[in-house]
Amino acid sequence: MFVPPDHSVGIVTPKTVVFDEPLELESKGRLESYQLVYETYGTLNSNKSNAVLICHALSGDHHVAGYHAVESGQDQSKTKGWWDTMIGPGKPIDTNRFYVVSSNNVGGCNGSTGPSSTNPNTNKPYGPDFPIVTVADWVRTQAKLSDHLGIEQWAAVVGGSLGGMQALQWSITFPDRLRHCLVIASAPKLNAQNIGFNDVARQAIRTDPDFHNGNYYNQHTSPARGMRVARMIGHITYLSEDMMGLKFGRDLRKKSKFDYEFTPEFEVESYLRHQGDRFVNRFDANTYLLMTKALDYFDPADEAAGSLTKALDQVKADFLVVSFTSDWRFSPERSREIVRALQSNRVNVSYSEIQCDQGHDSFLLEIKDYMAVMQSYMNRIANECLPNHHVKANK
Amino acid sequence: MFVPPDHSVGIVTPKTVVFDEPLELESKGRLESYQLVYETYGTLNSNKSNAVLICHALSGDHHVAGYHAVESGQDQSKTKGWWDTMIGPGKPIDTNRFYVVSSNNVGGCNGSTGPSSTNPNTNKPYGPDFPIVTVADWVRTQAKLSDHLGIEQWAAVVGGSLGGMQALQWSITFPDRLRHCLVIASAPKLNAQNIGFNDVARQAIRTDPDFHNGNYYNQHTSPARGMRVARMIGHITYLSEDMMGLKFGRDLRKKSKFDYEFTPEFEVESYLRHQGDRFVNRFDANTYLLMTKALDYFDPADEAAGSLTKALDQVKADFLVVSFTSDWRFSPERSREIVRALQSNRVNVSYSEIQCDQGHDSFLLEIKDYMAVMQSYMNRIANECLPNHHVKANK
Repeated sequence: MFVPPDHSVGIVTPKTVVFDEPLELESKGRLESYQLVYETYGTLNSNKSNAVLICHALSGDHHVAGYHAVESGQDQSKTKGWWDTMIGPGKPIDTNRFYVVSSNNVGGCNGSTGPSSTNPNTNKPYGPDFPIVTVADWVRTQAKLSDHLGIEQWAAVVGGSLGGMQALQWSITFPDRLRHCLVIASAPKLNAQNIGFNDVARQAIRTDPDFHNGNYYNQHTSPARGMRVARMIGHITYLSEDMMGLKFGRDLRKKSKFDYEFTPEFEVESYLRHQGDRFVNRFDANTYLLMTKALDYFDPADEAAGSLTKALDQVKADFLVVSFTSDWRFSPERSREIVRALQSNRVNVSYSEIQCDQGHDSFLLEIKDYMAVMQSYMNRIANECLPNHHVKANK
Repeated sequence: MFVPPDHSVGIVTPKTVVFDEPLELESKGRLESYQLVYETYGTLNSNKSNAVLICHALSGDHHVAGYHAVESGQDQSKTKGWWDTMIGPGKPIDTNRFYVVSSNNVGGCNGSTGPSSTNPNTNKPYGPDFPIVTVADWVRTQAKLSDHLGIEQWAAVVGGSLGGMQALQWSITFPDRLRHCLVIASAPKLNAQNIGFNDVARQAIRTDPDFHNGNYYNQHTSPARGMRVARMIGHITYLSEDMMGLKFGRDLRKKSKFDYEFTPEFEVESYLRHQGDRFVNRFDANTYLLMTKALDYFDPADEAAGSLTKALDQVKADFLVVSFTSDWRFSPERSREIVRALQSNRVNVSYSEIQCDQGHDSFLLEIKDYMAVMQSYMNRIANECLPNHHVKANK
């Protein structure tokens, strides 16, 4: 029998909340009603000051820490949450001290209302009729969840990559509803290269004949070929060139000489194809398309005449910004743009640039210096949440 | 009527040579006979000392400079050779002084024997039965062409990117048959990231249902969707992040606000899709697959126990190695590896690292410093070719 390791939150059960009210979206699209699936770990303290919201990235979901119950015969160890290294008893985001909440974003494919959900107007899956959603939309739905949970102000909102964009947006949209904002391996907006990679991924999916213009659910198929290629591209950009060199180099796959064939010759080919195949089985293509669009559209400075400083001028939270030296998808320079704009607004901001080889994926990994930075910052927040500590009134 | 501009070689006509003899390939594959299509510009001098061979890259061919004759109504300006900036009267590779030769590589799709050619054994296109070809194979066929043209020793063999690998291989396979080797924006071998990008491109093509396992010629179709995605990926890697930022940034396509649709929103999406579409119409998918495999396999050090220095220890040519600071596909560091290995062998090597924003594509562009370096080096070669100059005896 599987026993969750020490420092795990153990077996967790997702919950669902249905919002029976319309959601008006930035794209002018609208959902008549929607549901969010979420998980919570730890205990909300009496003055509700120790709640931490985790925002997920492109392919993440609400299952951030711990394990899910499984049918007998299934391998429970495979149900581990995607940020289990970071969250649990004694971990940097310590569930002995914090009440941790995470939800699957609207448009997702793991329980919250998304393209594969039934459209109440047609009784069929939304498919391509699911509206475009943005980071700001997600933040507003997460605020609805906060209301539902009775959390007026988060001790911290935390996210990496696309999740970091949501954390940043929280500080803009609801400056009074968070005391700390942790933006990890993120950027204030995508650049042309990022958008280019996203569009190649989308084109791979959308031109797959099995995509059926997004209506593949009723065709008993899915654009698996396109998704596979999209994920392979993604994986190359999540790793650093150096890390790929260290991990795979030019090593051949289970042989010492070339076969001169189109079967995988090099380990790196085999790895990427495997990652692509795995993803096809666990993720919905329409959701992938929506998530990449949300990434492309995010640009809070755009509404402030191009000035990120202006966009952040109402921010009240303190910030921790973390970047990784080998991350070329969201490079440290992009994090420093955020830091500079915050500093121009005299916001308290700590910035940490972690030396490591692992590329963009670093934010998900147990890297010693990174863990120490997170632990230290979260300790400070935890101390502020103690009953005898006067919780800082936001400026 | 179209008049070729000054400093153009003008209208050129490809020639073909058939080698009615088997070609045994590194992959153990074999062609019973094969043909090469090639072009020549300028005049071979009496002692045949002024011949320059140009080797083409992934999507190039024999048509390097000048224009092709066209039917009336067609736009002749669109037939310009791919390296016309570099080659012509008065240009760095000066056709008033050099006899310039370029051929389409075996496996190509523009006249030399390749997957779309008729297999004499079946009277059908080779398709997937066309054997894997390598850089070393190409160099041997180019040597056959040299024999056919009566050129015992090239004044220079020149290539960029995959073409640079061929130039380098010439110096290894036929050390006595070239006096100068110009290796531009190239590498001694691909790294894991390069191989990864190539394999994603291949998977996009090979999983396109219209690929028909490579036998699409008789199906009146082609894997256009896969080729389009492959080329889009390629283009992102040919440009630098900075150049994409300068060229496109987050500019929207013919509008000032987002449409929140899957049609192209950003200029960069439109550009990449256009590049993909154009490529589909001019290039054969099986050839693309073969070219990327040749890139992956190239690794002269592999046969010398991993030592590039050892692999280059018979080299006699002088070298010019050129790299571009913004080229992340074949970074300057990869060129410096070649330079160091040559220096260890006391080979005369000039190295130039050109400061520019344009990424890997730089080697095709008219960049002032680059042109000056090429002009200067080629002048030196031209002087050696003068009748009263004692042509250096190779060491």
